Amino acid sequence: MSAPPDFDTESPSAVRAAIRSGAFRGFTNTVARGHVQGNLMIVPAEHADDFAAYCALNPQALPLLGRSEPGSPHIPGIAADLDLRTDVGGYMVFRDGELVDTPREIATVWRDDLVAFVLGCSFSFEAVLQRQGVRLRHIDEGSVSAMYVTGIETKPAGRFGGPLVVSMRALRAADAIRAITVSQRYPQFHGEPVHIGWPSLIGIDDLARSYGGHGLTELHDDELPVFWACGATAQLAARQARLPLCITHYKAHMVVTDLPIDGTAADPSFEKEKTS
Amino acid sequence: MSAPPDFDTESPSAVRAAIRSGAFRGFTNTVARGHVQGNLMIVPAEHADDFAAYCALNPQALPLLGRSEPGSPHIPGIAADLDLRTDVGGYMVFRDGELVDTPREIATVWRDDLVAFVLGCSFSFEAVLQRQGVRLRHIDEGSVSAMYVTGIETKPAGRFGGPLVVSMRALRAADAIRAITVSQRYPQFHGEPVHIGWPSLIGIDDLARSYGGHGLTELHDDELPVFWACGATAQLAARQARLPLCITHYKAHMVVTDLPIDGTAADPSFEKEKTS
Repeated sequence: MSAPPDFDTESPSAVRAAIRSGAFRGFTNTVARGHVQGNLMIVPAEHADDFAAYCALNPQALPLLGRSEPGSPHIPGIAADLDLRTDVGGYMVFRDGELVDTPREIATVWRDDLVAFVLGCSFSFEAVLQRQGVRLRHIDEGSVSAMYVTGIETKPAGRFGGPLVVSMRALRAADAIRAITVSQRYPQFHGEPVHIGWPSLIGIDDLARSYGGHGLTELHDDELPVFWACGATAQLAARQARLPLCITHYKAHMVVTDLPIDGTAADPSFEKEKTS
Repeated sequence: MSAPPDFDTESPSAVRAAIRSGAFRGFTNTVARGHVQGNLMIVPAEHADDFAAYCALNPQALPLLGRSEPGSPHIPGIAADLDLRTDVGGYMVFRDGELVDTPREIATVWRDDLVAFVLGCSFSFEAVLQRQGVRLRHIDEGSVSAMYVTGIETKPAGRFGGPLVVSMRALRAADAIRAITVSQRYPQFHGEPVHIGWPSLIGIDDLARSYGGHGLTELHDDELPVFWACGATAQLAARQARLPLCITHYKAHMVVTDLPIDGTAADPSFEKEKTS
């Protein structure tokens, strides 16, 4: 067993500071669970408007939480002290669509023409699901949800396009029903699932072969696979676009924001239900 | 092909009049679809409070829409001209828990000590589901949803108790997800499903053997079985209680009320979504 962390794991700013100092290197799905987390996508300014249009056309996969000014690694609207060059636990650097590096910070790669986007992530609704009594076995087992590339095509914009990526959770029936009713209240975290039950019907031939090779992929006999649209869709689109430079977060190391999750439900009846 | 009906099939009072006159003898799941339909349960007054308590303890299966005064076959709160002795398309009469008759009206059976209950029915949310684009194959095929007795026990009250009965709809994944998010807004029509996917996990060994032997029971390869709590739960409870007299509607011939479905959504965001 590792030693308990010596920072406040529920404070977004403390989590970011621990990431920045190197004190915390884990997946972010178990920390700052009361606050929104997001996918990171950084592109050159000349491609930023096309990417924004691509997000707007595919909002279930790519719900936009924030966008930086050109050259700025900050998005004050989502976290005052956030520095996107150092505050994410890992990065992937792509050049011409090829992964060239997975650094722990990107200060030396940063350029004055880069624009950063933060997109909603299912980690945010996982915290809500657990508070509502839904069992998320992948978290119980210290893992993350598995991702898959589907046969569903996104709506293209400019150079951006390609297949929808989804995240899968193995859920018992009652939990699947609850997860559907709860997640649909959070369109900014992908909303309700895109599929349940038959992976082959959305072009997934083998659950064991997840995108990136990580996450919980084995179903128990009483579990159904439930699939949500996933922000990793942006990674495939950016690679397919063969941008000269593109930087994303490293898998399961998300942007931790100061936005409280509770204030973001689309449905006013949520608060009532949550406390009942 | 049968001749088209010569009454306004969308008017609850016209449907009731057609049932009363014998002009309409069909299932009620295709008529008066903008208005709430309900299960009928008639018991002697001495058992009425116990039955009401049983409903209150099991609201997902037995959501109470209305209750008559002792001896009255009318419930003005749900339909001004309703006469429960003549306005339901068929009845089942039980004595000491045994089915003894299935008459077309119950004027001669009616007694001054009887109390009628009307309980929410999934037929009401089926109309909503279809308006939201969900395909209900059993309706397309002129059938009704199949019912099953589960291994789930209800909470008992007085002499009333027994297993939960469910209705099953065969739905493609996207429709199943939509049906879950829509139906949960209507707790008075059973709310969200109680199960999806694996019938055996709720004590249903063979989908082909439905309760009463009617309804669509065969799944296509791309369909999931989705199960909702069902008002027929009351029938089993009343039979198990071995009441000296108990009268219910005959299968798929429901009480047609004047209550508009649209005014009953629990979620204020529903109207927005419906018109988008």
